[in-house]
Amino acid sequence: MAKNITPRATDYSEWYVDLIREAKLADYAPVKGCMVIRPNGYAIWEGIQRALDKMFKDTGHVNAYFPLLIPQSYLEKEAEHVEGFALECAVVTHSGLERVEGDSHLRPKGKLEEAYVIRPTSETVIWAMYKNWIQSYRDLPLLINQWANVYRWEMRTRLFLRTAEFLWQEGHTAHATSAEAEEEAMRMLNVYKTFAEEFMAMPVIAGLKSEGQRFPGAVRTYAIEAMMQDRKALQAGTSHFLGQNFARAFDVTFQNDKNEVEHVWATSWGVSTRLVGALIMSHGDDDGMVVPPKLATWPVLAVPIFRKGDEKAKVMTVLSQVVADLRAQNVGVKLDDRENVTPGFKFAEGDLAGYPLRIEIGPRDVEAGQLVAVKRNSREKKTLRLESAVPEIKRTLDDIQAELFSQAKNNLDRHSKQINSYEEFKEFIAADEGFAFVHWAGNSADEKRVQEATKATLRVIPLDAPEEKGSCMLTGRPSNKRVIFAKAY
Amino acid sequence: MAKNITPRATDYSEWYVDLIREAKLADYAPVKGCMVIRPNGYAIWEGIQRALDKMFKDTGHVNAYFPLLIPQSYLEKEAEHVEGFALECAVVTHSGLERVEGDSHLRPKGKLEEAYVIRPTSETVIWAMYKNWIQSYRDLPLLINQWANVYRWEMRTRLFLRTAEFLWQEGHTAHATSAEAEEEAMRMLNVYKTFAEEFMAMPVIAGLKSEGQRFPGAVRTYAIEAMMQDRKALQAGTSHFLGQNFARAFDVTFQNDKNEVEHVWATSWGVSTRLVGALIMSHGDDDGMVVPPKLATWPVLAVPIFRKGDEKAKVMTVLSQVVADLRAQNVGVKLDDRENVTPGFKFAEGDLAGYPLRIEIGPRDVEAGQLVAVKRNSREKKTLRLESAVPEIKRTLDDIQAELFSQAKNNLDRHSKQINSYEEFKEFIAADEGFAFVHWAGNSADEKRVQEATKATLRVIPLDAPEEKGSCMLTGRPSNKRVIFAKAY
Repeated sequence: MAKNITPRATDYSEWYVDLIREAKLADYAPVKGCMVIRPNGYAIWEGIQRALDKMFKDTGHVNAYFPLLIPQSYLEKEAEHVEGFALECAVVTHSGLERVEGDSHLRPKGKLEEAYVIRPTSETVIWAMYKNWIQSYRDLPLLINQWANVYRWEMRTRLFLRTAEFLWQEGHTAHATSAEAEEEAMRMLNVYKTFAEEFMAMPVIAGLKSEGQRFPGAVRTYAIEAMMQDRKALQAGTSHFLGQNFARAFDVTFQNDKNEVEHVWATSWGVSTRLVGALIMSHGDDDGMVVPPKLATWPVLAVPIFRKGDEKAKVMTVLSQVVADLRAQNVGVKLDDRENVTPGFKFAEGDLAGYPLRIEIGPRDVEAGQLVAVKRNSREKKTLRLESAVPEIKRTLDDIQAELFSQAKNNLDRHSKQINSYEEFKEFIAADEGFAFVHWAGNSADEKRVQEATKATLRVIPLDAPEEKGSCMLTGRPSNKRVIFAKAY
Repeated sequence: MAKNITPRATDYSEWYVDLIREAKLADYAPVKGCMVIRPNGYAIWEGIQRALDKMFKDTGHVNAYFPLLIPQSYLEKEAEHVEGFALECAVVTHSGLERVEGDSHLRPKGKLEEAYVIRPTSETVIWAMYKNWIQSYRDLPLLINQWANVYRWEMRTRLFLRTAEFLWQEGHTAHATSAEAEEEAMRMLNVYKTFAEEFMAMPVIAGLKSEGQRFPGAVRTYAIEAMMQDRKALQAGTSHFLGQNFARAFDVTFQNDKNEVEHVWATSWGVSTRLVGALIMSHGDDDGMVVPPKLATWPVLAVPIFRKGDEKAKVMTVLSQVVADLRAQNVGVKLDDRENVTPGFKFAEGDLAGYPLRIEIGPRDVEAGQLVAVKRNSREKKTLRLESAVPEIKRTLDDIQAELFSQAKNNLDRHSKQINSYEEFKEFIAADEGFAFVHWAGNSADEKRVQEATKATLRVIPLDAPEEKGSCMLTGRPSNKRVIFAKAY
């Protein structure tokens, strides 16, 4: 295990912070509650963006960019929305700074007539624009996504998982009918589920959020929930059916194909840099980060091993050819040919950053016509013949991707349990045993009672839960399917 | 020419605004001085990002993300820097909004101890972080880029060219020696020149900015300047050698290989969404936008032509195959198979948005084994045999790229003139004739005099200008090379 990283078994929270620091994924910023995403961490976010952006475009969406600042009066237009975000908004009140005699610091100048808030989310400013862009059913559907930064001043922050500023994408779509908007909300929930499972190697449960956990301004909120290695839940993405709430707030109407005027139907959906945190807590180990091959900018780290000058040319000739062959087949390779650090130093650095596969070639490997490949996740070491190295490496990367998924899936399955009484539930949660599948027919106040007693919250009502008669663990009222309660990030 | 677009010859400024509106590239935002980048405009920015990001990575740079908000005290640390930006900063003073009885609007709450500004540029917060990351010469060079939004409250704004919020990339590098930093500043200037010429099809002149036009905090500022169709100059990218100014302000030192402690040397460099404006004014015409093929997300617009139901299957079968063949060769194609609008409507929309090449197939084309290809820039129409259509289309896209460049190059060459007297200069500028290459030995005050008299500014001191003895057009002092004066955006 890596020095300077607390083992997971000793202290999971410490491990998380240590790993981020040692792997150089992120750093605390000089702004309260904010972080700096360092190159190793940002490369993971770029992998996430690359994969998701293609999935969005393949489902007919286009990207656009809306302003960072939102007039306060816009935020106020949707009642639930403003209540949900007002307390967390960064407020811009002045348009400049000026020097005032006798004061060593500058002072704000140019007080604005109306204050602006830094977007906590962009529904309001986007629907103000949609009012100008939508007149007829021919203008619908409008399928727009934005990659952007948002700001929500949080009290308790944690790198990647909960920071005041974070990066995300927010999709905002407009539709002619309720059914079409519902279908879109579900389509994007499924895009997120597919992305999480196929690219992040992170199994998730897709479901409906309860009323108390709904997005402010939404009619229904759907989410995907993942289980971290410490068995806590993490909400990894949300998709909202907004009904006509924002269309009404901003008076966005269209003429339908029967010449009637109606309000437009809406969805919004998003995932954020929090996914980097989810990835760390899904696959990281006591040696550092493990990046799934399909998200890695460089799935392969190539390290030449030589001591004397004449060994260098020999090793580099062979290694460079392997690197070129891999790149020709679209396998990203980071060639670490620095000479001022040792191979051992490079191995440790590579393990921390989480390159899925390392290949090494030394002088004796060259003579034997082979290379050594080491899997980051299992530490398994293989000797590959040079002539078949490229297909073997590609197959090994597929194996690693599959192994990471099945390890995470095992964790989820082993720590999911059907529980039938509140007593049993409380013990299960107190022992941090995982996801409790329970019968539930409570309301928001009941959820709060459970949370106060156990710290567990209702994560989702799974969409694929089978019908099953039962009675609510808390109220005893009849229930016809199970929901998930767990402690969560 | 397109209806609703004022011809360039009638009013160039009106043409620019009309084109942006009709081509749906951008829209005014409800926030003073800000814009919304609509999908057609954002797709161009994505093309710019794709090409530049690859060039940055190929020259060893990595991406990261630094906070949006900068503590006011950080901005104040570099004297010239704060003077340059203080008056334009959006100032965040509160951390939330609250409802106060009797007031229909929310009020700011949670006054911050220290105000934050929205980054007008990120040197200060980045160098505050570099202090933690740099200790030894082994940590150098640090080659980091950031794609981000920035905010500078401008008085007079113009879509894409000058807006309060804009998107850009900002490179920030740290080096062990002055020479290395100078080399980096020059390398990135050349990356910008190559990008502008090869991707944007926009010839530029690379040069040094005069003292008065230097970036606040820089030792030297380099820039690339392009000529628009109205013969005005547009600064398209800048690269700064910052010396040790920011390292001193934030006390960033390193131990060199002789165990001595020194301040670090720095560069920064950036281009922004202003490049979309440059592209419009370089290649747009009275019918709308023209996007260079190498920047276009979809270089080809494919339009099927059919009336009756039985024609549809016939036409779509053939067209879909051509589209698939093009995509297999990495040529992006937008297939517009909508049935609720006519082909003529699609042509007009495609011309406005600027797809470089349109292909059309109707029932008679299917029978003749051919398709029709129309070049957006020259309107040239060609009939292509289906069996050789893909390579012909690829060649035609290369031709369009080359034609756009040479048209812009002709404009630049025809309207660049060596001028030897101030009288002649004033006439040249008053007649909007283009770039004046003049001998110059004036100072900042002299530049201001010229600007007040003629509205022309010193654009750059070209790096490749030949040595030539002469005397300053204004002061008569000796000069040994020519500089460029022009009116500019």
